[in-house]
Amino acid sequence: MSKQMLTVDGLQYSNWSREIFQQMREGGLDAVHATLVYHENIRETLSRLGEWNRRFEQHHDLIMPVREPGDIERARAAGKVGVFLGAQNCSPIEDDIDMVAVMRRLGLLIMQLTYNNQSLLACGCYESEDSGITRFGRQVIREMNRVGMVIDMSHSAERSTLEAIELSERPVIISHANPEFFHPAKRNKSNRVLAAIAECDGLLGFSAYPFHLKDGPDCTLEAYCEMIARTVDLMGIDHVGLGTDLCQAQPVSVLEWMRNGRWSKEMDYGEGSAGNAGWPRPLPWLRDSRDFPNLVDGLRQRGFDEAEVERIMGRNWVALLERAAVPRSP
Amino acid sequence: MSKQMLTVDGLQYSNWSREIFQQMREGGLDAVHATLVYHENIRETLSRLGEWNRRFEQHHDLIMPVREPGDIERARAAGKVGVFLGAQNCSPIEDDIDMVAVMRRLGLLIMQLTYNNQSLLACGCYESEDSGITRFGRQVIREMNRVGMVIDMSHSAERSTLEAIELSERPVIISHANPEFFHPAKRNKSNRVLAAIAECDGLLGFSAYPFHLKDGPDCTLEAYCEMIARTVDLMGIDHVGLGTDLCQAQPVSVLEWMRNGRWSKEMDYGEGSAGNAGWPRPLPWLRDSRDFPNLVDGLRQRGFDEAEVERIMGRNWVALLERAAVPRSP
Repeated sequence: MSKQMLTVDGLQYSNWSREIFQQMREGGLDAVHATLVYHENIRETLSRLGEWNRRFEQHHDLIMPVREPGDIERARAAGKVGVFLGAQNCSPIEDDIDMVAVMRRLGLLIMQLTYNNQSLLACGCYESEDSGITRFGRQVIREMNRVGMVIDMSHSAERSTLEAIELSERPVIISHANPEFFHPAKRNKSNRVLAAIAECDGLLGFSAYPFHLKDGPDCTLEAYCEMIARTVDLMGIDHVGLGTDLCQAQPVSVLEWMRNGRWSKEMDYGEGSAGNAGWPRPLPWLRDSRDFPNLVDGLRQRGFDEAEVERIMGRNWVALLERAAVPRSP
Repeated sequence: MSKQMLTVDGLQYSNWSREIFQQMREGGLDAVHATLVYHENIRETLSRLGEWNRRFEQHHDLIMPVREPGDIERARAAGKVGVFLGAQNCSPIEDDIDMVAVMRRLGLLIMQLTYNNQSLLACGCYESEDSGITRFGRQVIREMNRVGMVIDMSHSAERSTLEAIELSERPVIISHANPEFFHPAKRNKSNRVLAAIAECDGLLGFSAYPFHLKDGPDCTLEAYCEMIARTVDLMGIDHVGLGTDLCQAQPVSVLEWMRNGRWSKEMDYGEGSAGNAGWPRPLPWLRDSRDFPNLVDGLRQRGFDEAEVERIMGRNWVALLERAAVPRSP
C-alpha cells in the first residue's frame, strides 16, 4: 500500500475500541489528539491514563502513544496511529502548579484552560462576564510554556483567549472550533481571535461537530471546504488544520458529563436544548474516521494544491507540536 | 579533576538541599537511589514528585533525574549526580494495578512490596505471621516485571521475600539491609534469602544505618568491610552494592512518619525503643556523602582489587538496573 497523505485529527473523543482504531487506520490517520478528560480530577485522570496504557498494550499493532512530536513520524513509519492526549479542562492539575510537569511527563500534550465555565485559570465561553486570565492562570501559562504543554482555548471566552495569547511565549491553539463568520455559536471564534491565533504562530483545528456548522448536520462538504478556504485567506495556510470533534459510539451519559460535570444540579444542555438534548446526527461525509479521504477530495475540489491539502490535513499539526510541545531544557 | 571511581548509593533519604547535593558530588557519587515516599498515597506521591521536579530545575547544575539505567552514564558524563527514585512501600499504587505503569513512567524505578507491616501485596518483617505474596501481589509483580520497576524486599518478611523471588521473572533486590550473620536484627537477612537474591541475579545493598550494624554507631569501617567480604563469599562479587540508608538533616517527625505512617495511634519505635527513640548517632567514617572515599579505601585495605571495588561501589547497581529496570517492549 502506498503511503497516504499525512493526516492528523486535532480532536476526537470516542468510545475507544479496536474497531475505532481500525477505522482510523483505514481512513489514513497517522495521529489523533484524543481527549483524555473533561472534568476529571488528578486521581481520576491517572485512571484514564491507566486505561490508555491498557489500550496501547492490547492494541499495540494499531496504535502507539505520542509523547513527543517526533513520535508522529515514528507512528507513521510503523504503520500505526499515534495518539496524543489532551485535557478539555484544567481539572487534571486541580490547584497545583507542580501537576503541569507531572501531567506533561505522563503524556498530556495539550490542555484547555477552561471548559465553557470559569476555571481557576481563565473564563469559559458560556459565562456572562470574562475577567481574563487569573493569577494562577498566569503561573500555569508560564509553566505550560516551560514543559511544552500546548495551551488550547477552544472552550474559552474571548478576552481570556486574547490574554492567554498575549501572555504565552509559545503558540496558542484552538484545537476544535470554527470561525464565527461561518456559523455564529458561542463556541465559534471571532475574526479578532483567529487573527491573534495566526499571529502567535498557533493553529485552528476545524470542527465537524454539527453544532459548530452552518446547517448543522446538513452542512455540505463543499460548504465546509469553502469555510476552510475563507479562513485560510484570513489566517494563512500554515495556521489551520483539522479538529473534527468526532465522538463515536458514546452514550448520552458522556454528553451529560461533558456538559454538567459535577457543577450543576440542573441539566445543562450546552449547545443543545431540552428539545434537542442528545448527540447530533453525524455528517454524511464524515461518519467515522474512514471518511477522512472525503476531506482530501473536498479540499482538492476547492482548488487547494497537494502541498496545501497536506498542510491542512496534518502537516500543520505536526509543525505546531514541534513549535509548542517540545519541553524547554532546564 | 580526574574521574573518580563510579559510585552509586542504593538508598538515601535526606532532607534534600543544595548543600547535600554538593556533598554528594564532592564524595564522588554518580547516582543515588532516593526514597520518594514511605506511606504517601497516590496524590501525595505526585506532590513528592513535584518537589523533585523543582529540585531538578533549581539545581540542574548538580543533579538530574535517572529515568532509564543509561541516564547514570549520562549524569556521570555531565558531572552531575543522577537521582533515581524509589518507594519504600506500595502506597503509591494504592489498590490500582494501573498505577504501576503510571508511576514507572514518572520515574519510580524501585518499589518495596512492604514496609515492616502487612501490605496489600506481601508481608513485612515486623509481623508475627507471614502468609506470603497476596493475590494482588502476584499481579503487581508481573506488572512490575513488564514495565521495569525493580522489586525491593528490604523491609519484607522472609517467606514473602522468597516467594517474590520465585514469582518474579526479573531480579529482585534488597536495596538496604545487611546479613543476619553480621548482626541479628529483624531488618537483616538470612543466608537463605541472600542466596536466593544472588541466584535470581539480584542485589543486596549494604546498609550503614547503625541499627543494622554490629556495635551500632561504633561499628568500625574494618568490621563493615569484613562483613562485605564475607557476604561476597556467599553471594558472589556481582550481587552486592551499597545502600547506606543515609538520612541527613531529618527531624524526628520524619522518623516517626516512617515508623507510624497513619497506621498507629500509639508510638511505634521500629528498630529503636522508648528509651532510644531518636535518630542514631552517625558513623564517624560515613557522616555524609563526602565520606564515600573512606569506603573505597576500606575495601582496598580488605584486599579487594580495583575492579572488585568498583563493582561494589557502583558498577553492580548500574548492571542491576540494566537487568531489572528497562521496560519490556509491548
